[in-house]
Amino acid sequence: MFRLTRLVRTRGIRYSSSTPRFPCVEAHATRESRLASGSFTSSPLRSASASGPEPPYARPNPASYTVFHSPAPFPLTYHLSPLPSFDIAYETWGSLSPAGDNVILLHTGLSASSHAASTLANPSEGWWEKFIGPGKPLDTNTFFVICTNVLGGCYGSTGPSSIDPETGAPYATRFPILSIFDMVRAQFRLLDHLGVEKLYASVGCSMGAMQSLAAGWLHPERVGKVVSISGTARSSPSSVAMRYAQRSVLMADPNWNNGFYYDTMPPHTGMKLARQIATITYRSGPEWDARFGRQMRPLPADAAPGAPRVPALCPDFLIETYLDYQGEQFCLKYDANSLIYISKAMDLFDMTRAALQELRLPEAETEPDAADSAAGAEVRPHSTSHSKSHPPPTNPPAHLPALAQGLAPLAHTPTLVLGVQSDILFTVEQQREVVDALRMAGNDRVVYYELGGVWGHDTFLLDVLNVGGAIRGFLS
Amino acid sequence: MFRLTRLVRTRGIRYSSSTPRFPCVEAHATRESRLASGSFTSSPLRSASASGPEPPYARPNPASYTVFHSPAPFPLTYHLSPLPSFDIAYETWGSLSPAGDNVILLHTGLSASSHAASTLANPSEGWWEKFIGPGKPLDTNTFFVICTNVLGGCYGSTGPSSIDPETGAPYATRFPILSIFDMVRAQFRLLDHLGVEKLYASVGCSMGAMQSLAAGWLHPERVGKVVSISGTARSSPSSVAMRYAQRSVLMADPNWNNGFYYDTMPPHTGMKLARQIATITYRSGPEWDARFGRQMRPLPADAAPGAPRVPALCPDFLIETYLDYQGEQFCLKYDANSLIYISKAMDLFDMTRAALQELRLPEAETEPDAADSAAGAEVRPHSTSHSKSHPPPTNPPAHLPALAQGLAPLAHTPTLVLGVQSDILFTVEQQREVVDALRMAGNDRVVYYELGGVWGHDTFLLDVLNVGGAIRGFLS
Repeated sequence: MFRLTRLVRTRGIRYSSSTPRFPCVEAHATRESRLASGSFTSSPLRSASASGPEPPYARPNPASYTVFHSPAPFPLTYHLSPLPSFDIAYETWGSLSPAGDNVILLHTGLSASSHAASTLANPSEGWWEKFIGPGKPLDTNTFFVICTNVLGGCYGSTGPSSIDPETGAPYATRFPILSIFDMVRAQFRLLDHLGVEKLYASVGCSMGAMQSLAAGWLHPERVGKVVSISGTARSSPSSVAMRYAQRSVLMADPNWNNGFYYDTMPPHTGMKLARQIATITYRSGPEWDARFGRQMRPLPADAAPGAPRVPALCPDFLIETYLDYQGEQFCLKYDANSLIYISKAMDLFDMTRAALQELRLPEAETEPDAADSAAGAEVRPHSTSHSKSHPPPTNPPAHLPALAQGLAPLAHTPTLVLGVQSDILFTVEQQREVVDALRMAGNDRVVYYELGGVWGHDTFLLDVLNVGGAIRGFLS
Repeated sequence: MFRLTRLVRTRGIRYSSSTPRFPCVEAHATRESRLASGSFTSSPLRSASASGPEPPYARPNPASYTVFHSPAPFPLTYHLSPLPSFDIAYETWGSLSPAGDNVILLHTGLSASSHAASTLANPSEGWWEKFIGPGKPLDTNTFFVICTNVLGGCYGSTGPSSIDPETGAPYATRFPILSIFDMVRAQFRLLDHLGVEKLYASVGCSMGAMQSLAAGWLHPERVGKVVSISGTARSSPSSVAMRYAQRSVLMADPNWNNGFYYDTMPPHTGMKLARQIATITYRSGPEWDARFGRQMRPLPADAAPGAPRVPALCPDFLIETYLDYQGEQFCLKYDANSLIYISKAMDLFDMTRAALQELRLPEAETEPDAADSAAGAEVRPHSTSHSKSHPPPTNPPAHLPALAQGLAPLAHTPTLVLGVQSDILFTVEQQREVVDALRMAGNDRVVYYELGGVWGHDTFLLDVLNVGGAIRGFLS
């Protein structure tokens, strides 16, 4: 977050041989110096011919994905003025059937791009490479899979780093607050554009699971099946807390500069620190115990043989260098404002009836079925959808009936919910809550699996056998 | 982390009516301006007559506690040079019995002072007020209770903010890395000074539980009973990760300045951000769901009646304002370097045999019983201490035998272990691990309770009935 040289100058510190050094802190200044000397800037206005490293989102490769441009003003949930227009970047796998009945809309987690799997245009591995392709769980011999970069993102879709047509400069924090519903509504504009009337299934993991449920809620008649993996229908205060800690760290980086950093050095250090916190919530203690234990990083090459290890205030343990590495990698790859806006949209997500009724959902004016049926829903606590093998919860959270009322439009949509017992971000209790609310709303076609294992929230990226198998079985 | 005015000057930002404002970020600069105008400094060298607010550790009230000064050089676990001398601040409750056999040494968590309960000299409430006093769980009608500020702390004991006698300036990060064992060894110097040969019991919570186990290990013949509440005998990688995230945030604050901030503005913002992360680890999601749910903070007084709530990037939810408040309170009360050093000592704590053998424990030279008996310990996996009501663990961690070997010196010390199922920092698995290792080492006087409830790690501060009752029963 600072340059050592400047500090020496402005603070008049005496550096002598006995002055402690902190390589883990100096690394921030070293990174910025390196980037500055390479004329690094994340500005999308920047000439493509300039030299030096750039984040991927500053030098998009439009040949690797398709961009849908929606020129019409787009009303938003929370903002009085509409978005003047927007772009959605997307990629597809497989072929649209003649009847157009084999479409799967895949929703991503917070920071993922549309590149879920390799394509001819972009052969690099996608974030769900092992799940998409011929014979894979999302079988492209059968299905036509569409994945978008989310509205608010920085990989080709309109977000805070995009140019505001009114000013000719990036929106930065003049970008409007988004809802998960806005993101899904933008995706349905894309589906309209593609002539896709009905989805075979809406599939999502993590934040994508929120979108998957929201898609089925907004358009029950257009979504055949819903898959919700490690998501929630109501962000819990502890998940808000963990995202708030990340946003706080990021926004406190002086380089964040109230969000206006697109012509200066972005807040890489804040991003790195935020990602370190996030990484803790993505994995689990048992995995780290098995993988790292209390192993320490190797002694420096110039250490005297047999010399005792002297601990330092900078990283000693492999778990620390792992977090450092994860944060350092991420901070150059993703736009800070996109992280803040999308993280906030996740916090605001709440499908209990009262919360849904407070939303200004522009689509509902023309398609009133979702909001209205939710508002007037009859919750059946003794519904037959709670059966002997799916008994009603013994100690339900107080908000469960309200959630059941909110989810009423999904009462007739076959839904797969998949949760992971070691997930500390989207806990297994939240998975059960979605299941119980859907069943309480009368949905007797809810499939629910709980996975064990040590991978925590990231299980959906790693466990092809169990996650993939559940999806395959549910979709076939 | 920055001053708005400076930013405006150096970055040339255009502030107009449409420029977004971020009160939660501006608060950092506002705090620093307020403190600067009050001539705030945390320097212990600072004249006591200067005006303005000061952190408690910068203006100690020696009348409210007693200071033991140890003038002799104090060898350290990890540092080649000894600490030239040290102070330990302590307070006591009750009276020493004529036989000197009623002493309880109470160890604190990371950031607590010696002020565990009110005294005549300092009538303000202590951090364990409801647990110490006549008729209370640590019954001062029976016991003489001693609580110290830990070595490395900032409430009267020697730590990074203390004056280095060699330079006449605060140690800052020239202070040596400490071990939990060093902290306990300093406490035993105090006991020697007080003429206390033997402790009736060593009692500690959180980091204090580590110290409590370490006390029994270093001096099995001087510690009658050990109480370990929500602690561990081996810091797990996930707890290291959570503390590392806090240290990273703190050390990235430019005001931290490699630890040399005692004559400038301390890194309050980094401290606040670190405390926000810590607060997440101290409580539990279920508690926050019950206490805050998804409640939002009240709309500003000047909001138009009936106007819809427009979310912001700064806090909207009560859980966010709670974290903000906790961080803001703490950042002015505690020394950043003390936090870093003590947090690191917790990471380094590991009582498995190999880890203990690597330690250079100066005391062991004269009192070889602990280290030697640990090194030569016979672990009895089928010990009678695992009985029908205390069966051996079914799926023990791989390091359990090594931990049992390390804990061998505690094989004959009656020990109470108390764990909380909702604790995410010192998980219940870690409590069971301590219990199983002690039993595997042959200790058949281990009492173990698991508490439910929603208070997480902070249960030891809040649940007088259950925590206090267990202590009372075990000590009597």
